[in-house]
Order: sequence, then C-alpha cells, then structure tokens
Amino acid sequence: MAASIKDVAREAGVSIATVSRVLNDVDVVNEETKKKVLEAIKKLGYRPNIVARSLKTQKTKTIGILIPDISNQFYPEIVRGTEDVANIYDYNIMLCNSDSDLEKEKEYLRVLKEKMVDGVLYMSSSLEPEILALIKELELNTVLVESKDNEGKLPSVTIDNKSAALDATNYLIERGNKHIAYIGTPKNAQNAWSLRYAGYEEAIKESGLELKEELLYFGELKAQTGYEAIDKLIEKDNIDAIFCASDEIAMGAINALRGKGILVPEDIDVVGFNDLYTASIFYPRLTTISQPMYDMGSVAMRMLIKLINNKDLDQKHFQLPYILVERDSCKK
Amino acid sequence: MAASIKDVAREAGVSIATVSRVLNDVDVVNEETKKKVLEAIKKLGYRPNIVARSLKTQKTKTIGILIPDISNQFYPEIVRGTEDVANIYDYNIMLCNSDSDLEKEKEYLRVLKEKMVDGVLYMSSSLEPEILALIKELELNTVLVESKDNEGKLPSVTIDNKSAALDATNYLIERGNKHIAYIGTPKNAQNAWSLRYAGYEEAIKESGLELKEELLYFGELKAQTGYEAIDKLIEKDNIDAIFCASDEIAMGAINALRGKGILVPEDIDVVGFNDLYTASIFYPRLTTISQPMYDMGSVAMRMLIKLINNKDLDQKHFQLPYILVERDSCKK
Repeated sequence: MAASIKDVAREAGVSIATVSRVLNDVDVVNEETKKKVLEAIKKLGYRPNIVARSLKTQKTKTIGILIPDISNQFYPEIVRGTEDVANIYDYNIMLCNSDSDLEKEKEYLRVLKEKMVDGVLYMSSSLEPEILALIKELELNTVLVESKDNEGKLPSVTIDNKSAALDATNYLIERGNKHIAYIGTPKNAQNAWSLRYAGYEEAIKESGLELKEELLYFGELKAQTGYEAIDKLIEKDNIDAIFCASDEIAMGAINALRGKGILVPEDIDVVGFNDLYTASIFYPRLTTISQPMYDMGSVAMRMLIKLINNKDLDQKHFQLPYILVERDSCKK
Repeated sequence: MAASIKDVAREAGVSIATVSRVLNDVDVVNEETKKKVLEAIKKLGYRPNIVARSLKTQKTKTIGILIPDISNQFYPEIVRGTEDVANIYDYNIMLCNSDSDLEKEKEYLRVLKEKMVDGVLYMSSSLEPEILALIKELELNTVLVESKDNEGKLPSVTIDNKSAALDATNYLIERGNKHIAYIGTPKNAQNAWSLRYAGYEEAIKESGLELKEELLYFGELKAQTGYEAIDKLIEKDNIDAIFCASDEIAMGAINALRGKGILVPEDIDVVGFNDLYTASIFYPRLTTISQPMYDMGSVAMRMLIKLINNKDLDQKHFQLPYILVERDSCKK
C-alpha cells in the first residue's frame, strides 16, 4: 500500500500541514524540520497525489502538442525536441494528431483545456481565425511552431521560409540552369509554406529569368505530388532543374524521372526542403534546405514553459537558422 | 467566464444534484428532465471539470505510451495507430521517449502512475525484470507492443518475428544464393528482435547450407550498422545475399555496397525488415518483411481500453500477420 501524507507526518514527527508546506516549497519551514520531512518522504517512498494537487495549484505539469500527423516524417523529430525539454522541467506531453482538420483541432483544444494542460504547442499547416479565437477564449498558453499568426499575437518559432526558398532557387540559378520548375504548395496557402513559393518567384524574377506558369505544379507536400508533377511537367519546355518545397516531393519526382530514363543530377538538378533523415539515405542523396527540426521543438517548449511560469520571453518570434546542405542531387 | 454546474441547474430549472446525475449517466433521471439538462448544457457551453471528476472516478481518460524514441522511423506509425483508437474512445495519450534507458523507463512509469493514467502501452527493445516488477507494483494496466514477457503475464501484440525472418532467408535461398550474410541484433538479445537471428539460423540449417560465423554481423538496428557491416563482411567469402534485421540496416548496407561499386540487386540480393515508408522510396525499392505497424498500435490500444474497462480480451497475445513485400532489391 502506498504511503500517505499522514504516514510521512508520523514518521517525521511533524504535522500534516508541515509536510504540505515542505511539499509546496513554502519557505516558512526551518531547515532541520525540512530535512526530517524529506528523509521521511524518501524512506517511505511517498509520492504526493499529483492529480489532487493539480486541482489546488491549477497546474498539471502537462502540455498538449497539436500536430497534423506524427506519421508524417516531418514531425517526429520536432516532437522529440519538445519532449526532451519537457522532461527536463518535469512536464509530460499529450500528443494529438489533428490531420489539420479544423473540427478535430477545435475538439482537441477543448479537451486539452478540460484536462487542464498548462499550455499548448500548436503546429498546423493552416491557422484559421476560428482556432486563434478559440485559443484566446480558452485562455490557453500557446506557442506556434512552423507558423505565425498574421497579427503576431502568439509567440512562434519558425525559419525564414521565403529566404530559404530564395537561397535554394538561387543555388539552382548559379549552376547555370535556365528552366527551373517549382513543385509545392500554392502561393495563396494560408501558411508558412506558401512563403516557399514566394521565395522561388522572387529568385526567378530577380535573376532576370522568365517566370513561366507552365513550370509550376501546386499540390500537397507529399511524394505523390512529385510523381504527379513529373507526369505533367516533363512534356513542357526543357526543364533543367526543379525546386521542390519538400524532400518528399523531391524524392517522388526523382523516382518518377528515373522511371522515364531521366537521371538526377546528370540530366536535371533537384533541390528539396526540410532535410528529413531520409534525405541523406536516399539515392542520390538530396541537396536540400535543412530545417533544425529538433531545435524548433525544443526552443518552442522552452518558450512555452517560460510563458507558463510568467517569465519574460527574450523574443516573441524566434527565427531559427537554416542551412542549404549540398549533397548529390545537383551537378557538382 | 465559463459556465458552472450551478448555471446549468438554474438554466434547466433543476437541482445541481440532478445535473450531476445526468452527467454521470445515472439512470434515475426521467427523460424529460434529462433533455432539459442536456439542452442547458449545450446552450451554456458547459464543460464539466474533468480533473475534479478524475479524482472521484479514479479515471483520467489518459493513457501513457512508453517508446524508445519517436524520431526512430519505426514508432510514429505505431503511435498514430494508438492515438486514432484512443481518440475514438475519448482517451488522450501521453507520449514518453525512454531511449530504452532503464532508469528513464522507471521514472516515466512512476510519473504516469502519479498522473493517474488509466493504462500504459509499453514498447521497448528490452523488457527488464525490474520493469515487469515495477509495472506489477504500481498496478498499471499494461499492454506490451513488439515484445513479450517470458512468463506471458502481460497482454501483448507482436508479429511472429522468427517465422518472418525464416521466410525472408528462405526467399534468398530459393533464389539460388549460397553465401547469405546476416546483419542485425545478436542472438542473445533480451527481446523479440533476437528471434530474427533465430529465424535466419533455422533457415540456413534446414536448407543444408553451412552456417558461417564470418557471415554474421551483430549491431543495432540502424543504418550505421549496415555501413560498418559491409566494411567487415565484404572481404569475406563471396557473399551473394544479405538478410538485414531492419530496413535501416539494409539501406545503410546497400549505400555502402554502392560506394564500393557493388550493385543491388545485380551483384547481391538484399532483404530488409519492417517496411518503413522509406523502404518504398529508397533506390532500389526494398524487398522487405512488412510489419503492420499502424495495426499493432491500434490493436494494442483496443486491448488496453478493454483491460481498463474490465472487459475480457479475446486473446491475450495477439500475433498480427506480416507479409514479404517483393520489390527491387533482389534479382527477379
């Protein structure tokens, strides 16, 4: 049978109230008494009822993580980063897969509030006004990962998606490519990813190349999009390079090209985005924009824990550095 | 300000006790009153305090998931399977990464108990006696995924690892290969994975081939192991095929072989294990044992929820079917 607070008080020869004061770290207990109580706690293996205490303190030491889908390769490393930091500060994470479905997201936010999580990390392709309104209504401490609300009210962690896409496209231009295709999310998407198209467009225009609608293919950030895009694009013009807004698209596209007897990088240069673990194992190894996924998760969690404990954030919007990793999917 | 139970009672024109009876689904409330209460709840957007209720019911509708590492490609799909089922039955999951570290696992189990989770899904390469003892001591409802305790006390979900490895090795033998190497976990490992070696050994012996120590390389189930193994093995004998106990090993090995000018499947046949998403994107696409990872998670969660609700399990040890997926890493 587990030891109770009463057992600890008896063992230490003090009152229950004194044990409670020690547990709650109230500073009026003298050191000697405190020591006795802590020894008794250790000896009896006493563990306070966290749930009962949560009701009193209104803190559960639990944080909700709202992501589209943990089986999408992009999220596991971010989640790992969040959990490692949570663990250091004695928090646990409650993982919710929303499939970017608005109703599911709303339901999760309500459930997380009911379960009295201390805060929420929100990652989603879209950031609908309804979600922002609900976060406000529920008074949930929230940090956004990989997206930013237009009004800039909620703290966020991102990379500079536009600048990264610009660099990737310029890298292709510098190699002498003239007909550079784009495969990825459309320009008008309500999320950080649409900035990748914006970066591509800017690079093309700035370099004096012609922006051709027929070299653009818009779709989800999945391998399937890469396959579909190649079927459509390859008839067009003489494409010599492709900027893909995700590694999965890039891998799908490269496999599709290989199926048509077109080799990467011999015939076409390809650059991806994200630097998934798979990107370095794929053949050819992908040249890609490396996002610091683990760090995005850990930085966001640190910010959230500060927020929960009413500490000042050094920065409200954290933009982490990215790098362009050169591997084998572009000609040397 | 959120509506309280008092507001609901006032709105419905009933007592607080009546509202409570409706909320707790006690059947003594007449239908008309019940309807009034439910309408009031809906109108006011009232949400009962789940944490307070948890203390009373001793149920939190939360389940702990203990895995080695969510950023290992094997786990995200399993976790997704668990969460989808949890969601259907109104449970949430608390995700814990243990790195298969014994102390970390013990600490997580204790914390999960303190946070009053209703049950735990435990996945880990090892299943130390200390862990089994702690699970028993804490009286945690537990289902094992991908492992089995030797005494068979805890419910579990696995595939038949030995039989799968036997099939994979026989597949290589049937193609006329004579010098079949093994790269994977050692035979004496305390986990389900060691059965993969056992299956390999049995297939080699049954077929009348010679079991050669020099064709074995033991290590972790990572890509790095594949690279290291090729450095050692390739000097030996004239290897014509390799059975790898994980896809990551297989991909590492194939890349290492390519680096040495040896092609798969032209020169050497390779079979992997797991069927990660990457296996179908890799070049060459991997022939591998496909584990139903999503199903393992969802079946385990269904079992656990039954256990929590004191329902009979149809089967205590669930062995899910696997298949050998033929792709391009073996000669046709």
